[in-house]
Amino acid sequence: MISVVILGSGNMAWHLYHAFKTCTDVRIIQHYHYKKQDNLFKESGIPFTSDLQQLKPADFYILAINDDSIAEISAQLPVLQGIVLHTSGAVSIEALDKKNRTGVFYPLQTLTKSRPVDFSTIPVCIEAEKAKDLELIKVLATKISKHIYTINSDQRRSLHLAAVFTNNFVNHLYQLAYEICEEEGLQTQLLTALILETSQKAIDVLPENAQTGPAKRGDFETMKKHLEKLSGNHKTIYKTISESILSTYGREKL
Amino acid sequence: MISVVILGSGNMAWHLYHAFKTCTDVRIIQHYHYKKQDNLFKESGIPFTSDLQQLKPADFYILAINDDSIAEISAQLPVLQGIVLHTSGAVSIEALDKKNRTGVFYPLQTLTKSRPVDFSTIPVCIEAEKAKDLELIKVLATKISKHIYTINSDQRRSLHLAAVFTNNFVNHLYQLAYEICEEEGLQTQLLTALILETSQKAIDVLPENAQTGPAKRGDFETMKKHLEKLSGNHKTIYKTISESILSTYGREKL
Repeated sequence: MISVVILGSGNMAWHLYHAFKTCTDVRIIQHYHYKKQDNLFKESGIPFTSDLQQLKPADFYILAINDDSIAEISAQLPVLQGIVLHTSGAVSIEALDKKNRTGVFYPLQTLTKSRPVDFSTIPVCIEAEKAKDLELIKVLATKISKHIYTINSDQRRSLHLAAVFTNNFVNHLYQLAYEICEEEGLQTQLLTALILETSQKAIDVLPENAQTGPAKRGDFETMKKHLEKLSGNHKTIYKTISESILSTYGREKL
Repeated sequence: MISVVILGSGNMAWHLYHAFKTCTDVRIIQHYHYKKQDNLFKESGIPFTSDLQQLKPADFYILAINDDSIAEISAQLPVLQGIVLHTSGAVSIEALDKKNRTGVFYPLQTLTKSRPVDFSTIPVCIEAEKAKDLELIKVLATKISKHIYTINSDQRRSLHLAAVFTNNFVNHLYQLAYEICEEEGLQTQLLTALILETSQKAIDVLPENAQTGPAKRGDFETMKKHLEKLSGNHKTIYKTISESILSTYGREKL
């Protein structure tokens, strides 16, 4: 039986709770929050503390907390027997205080409380100071995911940046597209099938083979017509991404 | 039985062929191409012509051809009994020569030959000069799709523009994200789960409720760190989209 203490009550804590709850050989033995226990943990009868000095002996202490708090909380921890993990894409393993064994447990997914995900499909990116600890973290990760990757802090920072393009920026493009529809009185669900096929196609054939459109084929007349129709953010983004596609395919500028 | 003549051999013709083939009450009675018949139509024994004057009597003549050729081919058509349809998002119904009954049959999806799609999920946007013809086009569309929308040429042009954001631009962001991974020696399938959840989440909760990330929360320190790490197209696009998200949420500029 692997014992885990979860620190934090945010989206990550919520999802780790649900993921570990389904494992017969992982037990969440305590929940820490600086103020008060999340209802989720309370309802499950998981012991609570708001005192870092009262943490129970466990195999893992998972800091599911804000990036900015990781260094501070890890410094405040007492010397513990288990491994202290953070779950951030953007924070180096070096942020964790060296008095304890340290590691990283970064599930690469957009996680929101109350929106369930199939954790087994989520890549968990792990890192540790010591090879032996890495093996232990790997065992923990395989309990909830089929996709475990060992990557270092530099790689993880790049991956996190790639995730900003893949999630934050893509979602903003969806929003701009929805706005274009709404301005014309068009139902936004007109775009549903296209959104789903675009993402699945990129995965199946690679984005470079899935690229189409006026910028890819160097159709300057259509691009000019589009730009005339647009204004504000829509226009700026249309121009910038079209320029980027044009340069990717070695064409002249707009 | 509804009879259809398909003109053209591109991606759209390929997919319409497959969609109509599954209908018991639609028959493709002829295939036109200015040069030679596509193997697909040949293998199915569908009669071929490369002479517009030899088109058979049919209920519909579907111009599944390049946007630039629609006006020209429609002008070259003889007077026909059936309705002449084009399948373009960007071309007005007015491009079709008025000597025939005219309409638009625009399936909103990214279509590539040899990549099958479930046509029943694709929205088909229809338009006609005459109300009676619109009803006939609607009957044809319902044979292959569950989602029929009557929209005019202006709306269709905006929808096509929204599709550029949703498909072409999103796919380019995927490509940039893949490049970031590859530069760090990271496997691009690390992004698969995130790509799929990002698209599904936007559909389920609307993009405005799914937006997260440093720009949304006004985290200028993280954005500056990201920009330092980036160069070229990646940097320009990071800056432009972040600015657009910042302005969407009423924050100051980068």
